Amino acid sequence: MPPAPLLRSGKSNRTTDSPISYFIKKAIETPGLISFAAGLVDEGSLPVDDVRVAAAEILADPLTGRAALQYGSTQGLPELREQVLQLVCTADGVKPADVNLTAADVCITTGSQQLLYLLGEVLFDPGDIVITEAPSYFVFHSLLVSHGTKVLTVPMDAAGMRVDELEALLERLRRSGDLARVRGIYTVDYFQNPTGLTLAVERRKRLVELARRFSTDHRIIVLEDAAYRELRFTGGDLPSVKRFDTTNEFVVYTGTFSKPCAPGLKTGYAILPPDLMAPILHLKGSHDFGSANLSQHIAARLIASGAYARHAEELRAVYRHKRDVMLNALGAEFADFPAASWTVPDGGFYVWLTLDGIDTGPNGPLVPAALEAGVLYVPGEFGHVPDESGSSPSNECRLCFGVATTEQVTEGIRRLRKACAAVSASKGAKKVPAGV
Amino acid sequence: MPPAPLLRSGKSNRTTDSPISYFIKKAIETPGLISFAAGLVDEGSLPVDDVRVAAAEILADPLTGRAALQYGSTQGLPELREQVLQLVCTADGVKPADVNLTAADVCITTGSQQLLYLLGEVLFDPGDIVITEAPSYFVFHSLLVSHGTKVLTVPMDAAGMRVDELEALLERLRRSGDLARVRGIYTVDYFQNPTGLTLAVERRKRLVELARRFSTDHRIIVLEDAAYRELRFTGGDLPSVKRFDTTNEFVVYTGTFSKPCAPGLKTGYAILPPDLMAPILHLKGSHDFGSANLSQHIAARLIASGAYARHAEELRAVYRHKRDVMLNALGAEFADFPAASWTVPDGGFYVWLTLDGIDTGPNGPLVPAALEAGVLYVPGEFGHVPDESGSSPSNECRLCFGVATTEQVTEGIRRLRKACAAVSASKGAKKVPAGV
Ligand SMILES: Cc1ncc(COP(=O)(O)O)c(C=O)c1O
Ligand SMILES: Cc1ncc(COP(=O)(O)O)c(C=O)c1O
Repeated sequence: MPPAPLLRSGKSNRTTDSPISYFIKKAIETPGLISFAAGLVDEGSLPVDDVRVAAAEILADPLTGRAALQYGSTQGLPELREQVLQLVCTADGVKPADVNLTAADVCITTGSQQLLYLLGEVLFDPGDIVITEAPSYFVFHSLLVSHGTKVLTVPMDAAGMRVDELEALLERLRRSGDLARVRGIYTVDYFQNPTGLTLAVERRKRLVELARRFSTDHRIIVLEDAAYRELRFTGGDLPSVKRFDTTNEFVVYTGTFSKPCAPGLKTGYAILPPDLMAPILHLKGSHDFGSANLSQHIAARLIASGAYARHAEELRAVYRHKRDVMLNALGAEFADFPAASWTVPDGGFYVWLTLDGIDTGPNGPLVPAALEAGVLYVPGEFGHVPDESGSSPSNECRLCFGVATTEQVTEGIRRLRKACAAVSASKGAKKVPAGV
Repeated sequence: MPPAPLLRSGKSNRTTDSPISYFIKKAIETPGLISFAAGLVDEGSLPVDDVRVAAAEILADPLTGRAALQYGSTQGLPELREQVLQLVCTADGVKPADVNLTAADVCITTGSQQLLYLLGEVLFDPGDIVITEAPSYFVFHSLLVSHGTKVLTVPMDAAGMRVDELEALLERLRRSGDLARVRGIYTVDYFQNPTGLTLAVERRKRLVELARRFSTDHRIIVLEDAAYRELRFTGGDLPSVKRFDTTNEFVVYTGTFSKPCAPGLKTGYAILPPDLMAPILHLKGSHDFGSANLSQHIAARLIASGAYARHAEELRAVYRHKRDVMLNALGAEFADFPAASWTVPDGGFYVWLTLDGIDTGPNGPLVPAALEAGVLYVPGEFGHVPDESGSSPSNECRLCFGVATTEQVTEGIRRLRKACAAVSASKGAKKVPAGV
């Protein structure tokens, strides 16, 4: 007898598999494949020794050991919240009091991903509007779809989100009466996933001004996802968008220890306006009533001992080198391929490759050709939300140099070039019979 | 200028603070207070040394160290999923194949709490009906309220949920046409939080039969929350409800390492019917795409080395002793107080105290009297869902002997008796003038 059908909630029905899980699966199944797809961090530089020492110290003393192995609080370890506040404010060149913040405005989550989810859950009802960059972090897009949110996008240029276009969009929404449904603006403003681009400093300030100006009937929250901020390897740090929200009203800032330290701790954090903190914590109380406490104690000890800062510094050199290797390989391999252009990130681990005239999409010819050549990328399409006609740009690739070794980076770009050649040749070949 | 109002989602508006957070706060603020309120585990027996050794071993080897510090998968560490399957099946006296299970049916979550949340999110739309025991785990009730679910309850007796009453309720719902909205039945079937009661074995089998029988149009899922199963200190283990779901269709089984090992790892697990696994993982992909990986590696190593089993065995002795101390104290202090009766748990760490004629509720006289005497309990009311008239039993207390020391247990019960005396005396005192 077949089982009686399972009825699922509206939310569950809206929630689909991650678009890249097929790609991750392929990567695992295919021996010898070089993957630029998964956003994993560099393996060799994971702080195994630092974490070993931190864990050993915490667990050598029954008092600190027990504290780390007992339940923590829903909001997170007070010591770590204080450290996070200091780290962010120091990076921004301000004192917490200058920007109206205390450790009570910080909460710790299961990676920054959990905060993105919780914030969406607190703010967005089906039909609400959220504005993101085009392209943007596809896991956030999936999450918005699952919340039933309508996503509108703003184009980017070399200086990140086009804030002038954002203003024009908000104006149009005001005129059409839809401003009432706009609940949030999302930006990955440092070395964005997927493009590697960074929001220019004047635009940061302007973003807060726009949120304030258009928050006439209700507040429009800017969600600043600073996941890669610590991984800058060229130029000086830029102040956060949060830095300009001096009343702590409009901007939620999220950060993570996954990228500059270790994803295995799965510890992230957020700085929130006070009237958002309570609703977030109430929901987190139902989700898990607190993230893994041992991870939080380890993160706090790494910061206190200086290991965290030292390690992040080392990582910057590691990723700078990997970026250079990828850019050199792209320059060498694609010099004779004028249809190719790519971004030059100042940090993080993504390069965004545009291949004019080649369909890079999941059903296009480049994915199988690349697999055949032994390399994997994320189709740029996944970072886009289809427009009214249902289409999105399909000639872009996200290339992640996070986890691949330098040798793999060089070889992977060579393979990608080979795949592009194969696709171009067969296009040429196909064109001939069509013309005959 | 006051900030523009923050508009929150329907779900956020339904989600309130945990009822006991006031009590936890009180406990922290009041020096010398003995708390039977928080469901924390025994401090002294936290496996600090075991975890120290496990972490050191994992992090001494760059290969295993890196694996533990990199991102894991959304479903969780394969090795740990296999171990969980073996643990549960061994406890149930079956081979995985006998009950149609493999490690692909197991997923790892941020404590078992996260699974409760995710399952609710996947199954329940506002207005759907979930049936729970009365009383039940209040964090689960809050979560149902936040999902907008309607909660119906079934009474308990010394053998746990009255499954005959459940059957009668399902029959009534069928007749009224409301069966279509029944999505789940929730049971904490081992040493229940809050009553300490355990579901009898014949009722376990019957529960699966009822789920099957009433799943005519759609499936009714039984959520078996086995959070305390490993902490049995009297009698032999009982097979799980899941054990009787030999086709893996009707029962979701959740367990946790928080109680028998360490809450600071915040690692739980579930065994799910296959058609529930994918929707759960899709949502978990948006929540966090995987729980803390280091915690999972530590749990796996503790199980592999035998430390987990040895420690759980030690814990059983610890909690048995604490239970005995609490029962002895109750016997001694409340011998002359016929209005008091209490449960005798075979495991876990909760005793359920009934005080006929004394209002134990949050606004009743016993809470302040107990605080005055220096002891804290959880009002039983929090475990109940108000009936149509809006009222719920208010003469019960949940007493947790998890975190208090044995000295504190004895002294705390003495203080509680004193508080009861004060309340009775003032009631008596009040009665006299009323009679005059
Ligand atoms: C832009 C961005 N935000 C957030 C996250 C979430 O990472 P975590 O939850 O590990 O902090 C990621 C991970 O890839 C990311 O790329
Ligand atoms: C009945 C019950 N289920 C689930 C949980 C969740 O615990 P955890 O998320 O730490 O596994 C608890 C914790 O107190 C509980 O009492």
